[in-house]
Amino acid sequence: MTDPAAITAAILVIGDEILSGRTKDKNIGTIADYCTAVGIDLREVRIVPDEADKIVAAVNALRADHTYVFTTGGIGPTHDDITADCVAAAFGVSIDVDPRAKAMLLERHKPEDLNEARLRMARIPAGADLIANPISKAPGFRIGNVFVMAGVPAIMQAMLDAIGPTLETGARVLSETIEAGNLPEGQYAAGLSALAKAHAAVSIGSYPSMTQNGFANRIVVRGKDAAAVEAARSAVAALVTELRDGTAG
Amino acid sequence: MTDPAAITAAILVIGDEILSGRTKDKNIGTIADYCTAVGIDLREVRIVPDEADKIVAAVNALRADHTYVFTTGGIGPTHDDITADCVAAAFGVSIDVDPRAKAMLLERHKPEDLNEARLRMARIPAGADLIANPISKAPGFRIGNVFVMAGVPAIMQAMLDAIGPTLETGARVLSETIEAGNLPEGQYAAGLSALAKAHAAVSIGSYPSMTQNGFANRIVVRGKDAAAVEAARSAVAALVTELRDGTAG
Repeated sequence: MTDPAAITAAILVIGDEILSGRTKDKNIGTIADYCTAVGIDLREVRIVPDEADKIVAAVNALRADHTYVFTTGGIGPTHDDITADCVAAAFGVSIDVDPRAKAMLLERHKPEDLNEARLRMARIPAGADLIANPISKAPGFRIGNVFVMAGVPAIMQAMLDAIGPTLETGARVLSETIEAGNLPEGQYAAGLSALAKAHAAVSIGSYPSMTQNGFANRIVVRGKDAAAVEAARSAVAALVTELRDGTAG
Repeated sequence: MTDPAAITAAILVIGDEILSGRTKDKNIGTIADYCTAVGIDLREVRIVPDEADKIVAAVNALRADHTYVFTTGGIGPTHDDITADCVAAAFGVSIDVDPRAKAMLLERHKPEDLNEARLRMARIPAGADLIANPISKAPGFRIGNVFVMAGVPAIMQAMLDAIGPTLETGARVLSETIEAGNLPEGQYAAGLSALAKAHAAVSIGSYPSMTQNGFANRIVVRGKDAAAVEAARSAVAALVTELRDGTAG
């Protein structure tokens, strides 16, 4: 189903607190859902610690490989917030207090409260566009194909809403789910593999999960062509029905 | 706080369903908590799709950089379960049905039900050790420093419990949290930065979160030396108290 014309994306989550387990990430799922809804293929996610060399290397690896890179975390006022400086370094541009960003901070803070730490949140790499933050004003930014957003989920969501209309999107991936229930994967795997080969325009995945009553399996057909997705969905549903009725081997 | 003697780890999550947003990953947080509890530094996480070249490249990049690599997902019986083959390819070893793994599957399935698809779950790279799966029997495996586990959270947890005693662990990272409440990050950032410099044996992070009543900020001191952590915790707590009482600028 790999589409050379696809709009692709990667997420870079920046933060020791995710790697220590102290904070459980919620942004990956939110951005993944968003990408799927608008027709952007999310292709990769990385989580790295608050260390400059790791952040710079990941930004450069991901921006070379994908249409868009979304970063979350590390743009606050404290000493461990180093994302903006690292993105500037990755792009080889300077970084300084941006008058537009400073003006945004002044919507929230009195001039006498805009101390050096808070002004760190107005440090923006040269050439970047700002991403508005309606919640706490300190902006994110876009430079090249990299979108730098906050880690606090509510603020990240607001920034994602703000950048959404600026993103180029592709054909939406349509998705159909066939409930296989407690029909074992091992019983339908051979038939499903044959269907996957016969319906090469779609991708077919099998996803077990566990409930109190044992396995609950789902088969998902994904593709960009509605007729191809429907043909595969129908064939998978027929396979599941056939196996449930015990009329097949 | 980088410790050259540290035991480090990376997680590789394998699965289109995570990247599409259909499934929200729970395993990263579980493994992160586990690593922190036993003194393993989780240093990186990657999520990649069900594509052989991406999986092989990620396995090889991560196993070169870390003491341990934990993978989740892609070891079931269906055509989209390609993790075992990819790990074999990454290590340059052959892969075939392993008699020990087949015996485990026979604990759950009658011989006549052990079809070709189910036997896929007994395909294990040459030289690997098995990881028991008490829930559905199909084993994970360890080869070199790579531990290949299931994606279903309950099974992943059982496999993690099984491999835990075999892992070399380091000094535990001790963690102390100072509640800053609604004291703004921008107000304590300068003081905290100075403390971070003065207490270089620990790492100090500031983590804002949002509640219905506005920001709720936490400062976390982490380190392996109990006395150093306590000294930093005490200094941070004093800073927060001082700023709350308004006796500092």
